[in-house]
Amino acid sequence: MTASATALDLVRSEVDRSLRTFIDRQRPQVSAPELAPLVAAVDDFLSGGKRLRPAFCYWGWRGAGGGDDPALFTAAASLELLQASALAHDDVMDASDLRRGMPSAHRRFQALHEKAGWHGSAEQFGEGAAILLGNLLLVWSGEMWRTSGLPPAALAAAQPVYDHMRTELMCGQYLDLLEQAHGENTFDSALRVALFKSGKYSVEHPLRLGLVLAAQEREPWIDRLCEEYGRSVGIAFQLRDDILGVFGDPAETGKPAGDDLREGKRTMLIARTLAAASPAQAEEVRRTLGDPELGADGVGRLRRVIEETGAVDACEKMINDYLAEALGSLEDAPITPESRTALADLAVAATSRRT
Amino acid sequence: MTASATALDLVRSEVDRSLRTFIDRQRPQVSAPELAPLVAAVDDFLSGGKRLRPAFCYWGWRGAGGGDDPALFTAAASLELLQASALAHDDVMDASDLRRGMPSAHRRFQALHEKAGWHGSAEQFGEGAAILLGNLLLVWSGEMWRTSGLPPAALAAAQPVYDHMRTELMCGQYLDLLEQAHGENTFDSALRVALFKSGKYSVEHPLRLGLVLAAQEREPWIDRLCEEYGRSVGIAFQLRDDILGVFGDPAETGKPAGDDLREGKRTMLIARTLAAASPAQAEEVRRTLGDPELGADGVGRLRRVIEETGAVDACEKMINDYLAEALGSLEDAPITPESRTALADLAVAATSRRT
Repeated sequence: MTASATALDLVRSEVDRSLRTFIDRQRPQVSAPELAPLVAAVDDFLSGGKRLRPAFCYWGWRGAGGGDDPALFTAAASLELLQASALAHDDVMDASDLRRGMPSAHRRFQALHEKAGWHGSAEQFGEGAAILLGNLLLVWSGEMWRTSGLPPAALAAAQPVYDHMRTELMCGQYLDLLEQAHGENTFDSALRVALFKSGKYSVEHPLRLGLVLAAQEREPWIDRLCEEYGRSVGIAFQLRDDILGVFGDPAETGKPAGDDLREGKRTMLIARTLAAASPAQAEEVRRTLGDPELGADGVGRLRRVIEETGAVDACEKMINDYLAEALGSLEDAPITPESRTALADLAVAATSRRT
Repeated sequence: MTASATALDLVRSEVDRSLRTFIDRQRPQVSAPELAPLVAAVDDFLSGGKRLRPAFCYWGWRGAGGGDDPALFTAAASLELLQASALAHDDVMDASDLRRGMPSAHRRFQALHEKAGWHGSAEQFGEGAAILLGNLLLVWSGEMWRTSGLPPAALAAAQPVYDHMRTELMCGQYLDLLEQAHGENTFDSALRVALFKSGKYSVEHPLRLGLVLAAQEREPWIDRLCEEYGRSVGIAFQLRDDILGVFGDPAETGKPAGDDLREGKRTMLIARTLAAASPAQAEEVRRTLGDPELGADGVGRLRRVIEETGAVDACEKMINDYLAEALGSLEDAPITPESRTALADLAVAATSRRT
């Protein structure tokens, strides 16, 4: 087991336990037999996930002097409900068929409709049910956060961070839709999406929540650390995501090979490809990127172009540079040595992952 | 001005003011120029609405001895954000083109995409943006509720009611999708949908929130009143909705004539029609109900069948009976006389409305 796996594993089992406890507490409200498929989808959605966001929150808390407190794990685990909500909705918005190697929520409800031979459009039923599943998870995430059992003063100090994170998540996703629609794909636009999508929501805010919960106030060094570490880890995390979306092993990512190419995602990897492409290579990218019918051959050709332009190497170098920045940001921060090591490990884990 | 209009008007201007204040407080977070269409959609969505749910909450509060408190109006007004969220998502789920006579949220964003000539599917962009708009409204509703300024003890007493309401809203909408998919359309199933869709969410819980906020505890008489009044007003409200969905004036409802017929909604009105229909009439209903292409002639024929079977009269009688039950439930409740009168007025307003 690597050091980075340890920083995550410590958190994972406690987060899993907290999620089970919370969901079990909700079950009496959702016990009608007709609701069983909705509850099963909640259970399955929460069984996966890397638990990175709760881990940033936990190590922030420990970094500002917090002890091992079940209430903190509950608050941190609520971030997984928020993330599960975003994924259920994301898959509807992107019309994605798979999530972690299983049918996405809307496809799952669509299959339920088809199998039962119900009335009306199975696709529309699937989308509607997935929207409601995401809403239920969103509502429950806020409830789990609020009822974690943390001291009121801690929750009150962190509440503005929490509220801002949720507003920014929804707005950031809207900006992401816009970027895809604009089809700009400059280095700047790719960086902005990475910053909003991963930097702030997945790293900066979870870390800040943990720090502010423990410190019970938002001290300037907290914001400085979260902005620097969050920005660099978040962007490197997203760059890794971009590479995995094109070159990832379907057995590990749970997504079909080259899925991002079929979706036509405007990532830094593609921006770098286009910037260094010959006219013939650029033509190949423009012709095939975003073709939903793109087959294995087309994926192979696009992958070759991306590699030949040096875009993969350029992105790997960026990941290394951002990782170094992240590690640098930890050096002078007045956090506990234990947390400094764990956050360094988490930065490595978030940027060198294969799923 | 009728008495029932007064009970609502008293609330409406304060609710409008509270919503404006809250949204203005949020604006700095959403000031990026690219977010302008999202913020404009929030503004427009909140400018309409009958404010019935805040009115039930306000008169519950007054009924249990609460005074005129701006904080209560803020908490009550947050129910309009929750409702706006549900409407934005509902229109995506039902693929509805119109809302209050204007393009629905997803059509509005679709038109933005089309007009700008952006990349990708305008329809998919519209749906994605409307899902995110609904999410933003949902998140903001919880934030507005929590930051209303009401005493912590009042909020703590009402919080379980609030949390349960939101879980039940999502589950109730899922049950509604299921009922449409099952196509059962018995009296029982139509009543169950009416109870969950309107009884609990629109009347019972808002009223209970106001009462518990003022009483700061959930006394047995509060639950008894809310269940009886909520059930009867809610069902009568939904029956009126069903009639308006078939016979309403488009200029007043903001929906095309006979919209519910094209959507094939399984309402009490349709259940009563089928129960009393001749074989030829039943065949006509089965053949045309739910046909998205149904024209004015088809709507006219279906309306005639519904009227000739006596289903409209039967539903009007049910509305009257439920209204009488609602008024009866107020008689022995230990609420202030002023609130008793206002809640009676609101019951009339909710069930005799034309929009």
